Amino acid sequence: MEILPAFKAPARVLMGPGPSNVSAEVLQSMSQPLVGHLDPVFVKMMEELKTMLRAVFLTRNEMTFPVSGTGSAGMEFCFVNLIGPGDEVIVGVNGVFGTRMVDVAERCGARVTKVEAPWGQIITPEQIAAALRTVPKPKLVAIVHAETSTGALTPVEEISKLAHAAGALLLLDTVTSLGGCPVRLDEWAVDATYSGTQKCLSCPPGLSPVSLSPRALEVARSRRTKVQSWYLDVNLLASYWGQERVYHHTAPITMNYGLHAALRLVLAEGLENRWKRHQQNHLALKSALAAIGLELANQEGHQLWQLNPIRVPAGVEELEVRKRLLNDFNIEVGAGLGPLKGKIWRVGLMGETSSRENLRLFLTAFCQVLNECGRPTDTKAALAALA
Amino acid sequence: MEILPAFKAPARVLMGPGPSNVSAEVLQSMSQPLVGHLDPVFVKMMEELKTMLRAVFLTRNEMTFPVSGTGSAGMEFCFVNLIGPGDEVIVGVNGVFGTRMVDVAERCGARVTKVEAPWGQIITPEQIAAALRTVPKPKLVAIVHAETSTGALTPVEEISKLAHAAGALLLLDTVTSLGGCPVRLDEWAVDATYSGTQKCLSCPPGLSPVSLSPRALEVARSRRTKVQSWYLDVNLLASYWGQERVYHHTAPITMNYGLHAALRLVLAEGLENRWKRHQQNHLALKSALAAIGLELANQEGHQLWQLNPIRVPAGVEELEVRKRLLNDFNIEVGAGLGPLKGKIWRVGLMGETSSRENLRLFLTAFCQVLNECGRPTDTKAALAALA
Repeated sequence: MEILPAFKAPARVLMGPGPSNVSAEVLQSMSQPLVGHLDPVFVKMMEELKTMLRAVFLTRNEMTFPVSGTGSAGMEFCFVNLIGPGDEVIVGVNGVFGTRMVDVAERCGARVTKVEAPWGQIITPEQIAAALRTVPKPKLVAIVHAETSTGALTPVEEISKLAHAAGALLLLDTVTSLGGCPVRLDEWAVDATYSGTQKCLSCPPGLSPVSLSPRALEVARSRRTKVQSWYLDVNLLASYWGQERVYHHTAPITMNYGLHAALRLVLAEGLENRWKRHQQNHLALKSALAAIGLELANQEGHQLWQLNPIRVPAGVEELEVRKRLLNDFNIEVGAGLGPLKGKIWRVGLMGETSSRENLRLFLTAFCQVLNECGRPTDTKAALAALA
Repeated sequence: MEILPAFKAPARVLMGPGPSNVSAEVLQSMSQPLVGHLDPVFVKMMEELKTMLRAVFLTRNEMTFPVSGTGSAGMEFCFVNLIGPGDEVIVGVNGVFGTRMVDVAERCGARVTKVEAPWGQIITPEQIAAALRTVPKPKLVAIVHAETSTGALTPVEEISKLAHAAGALLLLDTVTSLGGCPVRLDEWAVDATYSGTQKCLSCPPGLSPVSLSPRALEVARSRRTKVQSWYLDVNLLASYWGQERVYHHTAPITMNYGLHAALRLVLAEGLENRWKRHQQNHLALKSALAAIGLELANQEGHQLWQLNPIRVPAGVEELEVRKRLLNDFNIEVGAGLGPLKGKIWRVGLMGETSSRENLRLFLTAFCQVLNECGRPTDTKAALAALA
């Protein structure tokens, strides 16, 4: 066949649901030469990754490391290790990722009880308490901390207490929350979590940081049936990521370079500073939207800082706005999914993307496009409200 | 915590079982800015990846794409989609990866019949024919084309005919063969295959190119039970990698950049030229080894060009030689596994690594280290035999 031209990536401003923009330092780290996956220098770097991930997750869990797949592989990692046929699982469903957890749990043979809330709303402790009263011997309660499909941030502490009081493990999806708002695994007594690299850690997608509490690890170790996935079996992975260094699979070396560089930047900024930056830019966006008569579609009081679901105003075509932002301004924003399809734009302010400069850029382009699409919008008012 | 120093990768010569060395062009491609996984420019690039993978696999299979995980995820992809509880599977076991296939198949609920050969030997058509006579309704015959743990290259055509005559699908592991020696999916009527990026394609690890024949795809589509892995379910992946572009998971963007660049280089060199280069460097190494009284530990007539298992001579400590090569010369070679542990060094001549310069470098260092380790070795004789 004829040789295709080399791929040249355009310089997008990534303001969708992830990936977010990646710093030059992280990008450069990934063009370093390869080393072997059992090379002593790589093994040392693996230890540093585990240490830094523990610092970012605020946990002392020994079993904290990046799974060699994207966030959805991390989700599957948690379920296949902890759940077997016939196990009772309670899943909070208030968006795409709760829905996905139900599917994954069922493929592990679980009996799933869904606790549902309208998309954009949180899952409440009262709902979980009610479900726990109806389910005999619940093994796991699973909650999405930050629903990327809606921007709802479900508080964890009360739900965690309820789950543990009932003898269940707590599984928390922290894909979009980690690095953008408080995630306190140990303080909240989270037993299992998976995250992604391409959201508020601002590293390219390809790895899923996970963490299992000693209690969760014991469940995986003492199960009577083999974990149905060889690739994600923590009992095998523990020998590679632990002290034995037994070959399991060939780790994605370059992705681990990128994650190492990204975690350094997260810790250099400081978690508290980073959370505050995300909060401030979210509040600034919200003010600017109010100034032009727009609003967020998720529950007041539980709005995620890093993912903002802007309600599409009457008379404006959702897709047309996204297309123009991408084609005319190199700005990517996300579409609504499921019941929110066509009704919202999902504007991510994650990691590197969350800056005052990007907010100005976005608002200027967004107001211009809204004007072009037949909705008179006052750019000056939006920008003034930012300040 | 204190901020750790940035990771600096040393410039290794990667002559182990993979990863192989990666060209500057591929490394640079991965430091390009991120785009979204649903961005039209990325979608176009995905199509190009599929086209180039078909050219490298020598197939017209529509369902040819990179799975978002390493080669072992590709292995699992093939089994979870094609196999369900109670299915009869015949697996050729002559090294680590046949052994792994048995484990993966059993985790899918398969009844596995092992066809075994000593490590370093091939699986013969006669053995497969014998197994097919004893197994009622075999659904799948699985073979490792190039055993990375031993360097044995099992011929495929006759086994493929036998499998199909018995009504079974043929699954072929092409992790180490693809790009280094002939792999002809359509001509050999292979129904399912998985490969890796970090061997003879000389791209970093992190993706697994896979291909399913229409017949295999139909098996996956018409199965009565759900695929046990959500992440690897081809019925869901087909909607993302096909024309519908339905969001499934966030593809590892950067890894796909790298694979695009690597496949361009493979096709620019030409498959035939690339195979020939691998063959010539293997033969040169073999001559040089003979000149210093060393030999390969795998079956004569079926020796893989890209992975050379050198038998450790009496009186030499295997580990000491590897350590010195790495620490004193920045050269990585692989250890033996399983029954070959301590008995061989695995010297990879894969992709970018397979060059006359690297051969000279390796032999010079290797002879020096052998001399230091108490085995008198004539460097000049080794180098002279190369020419």
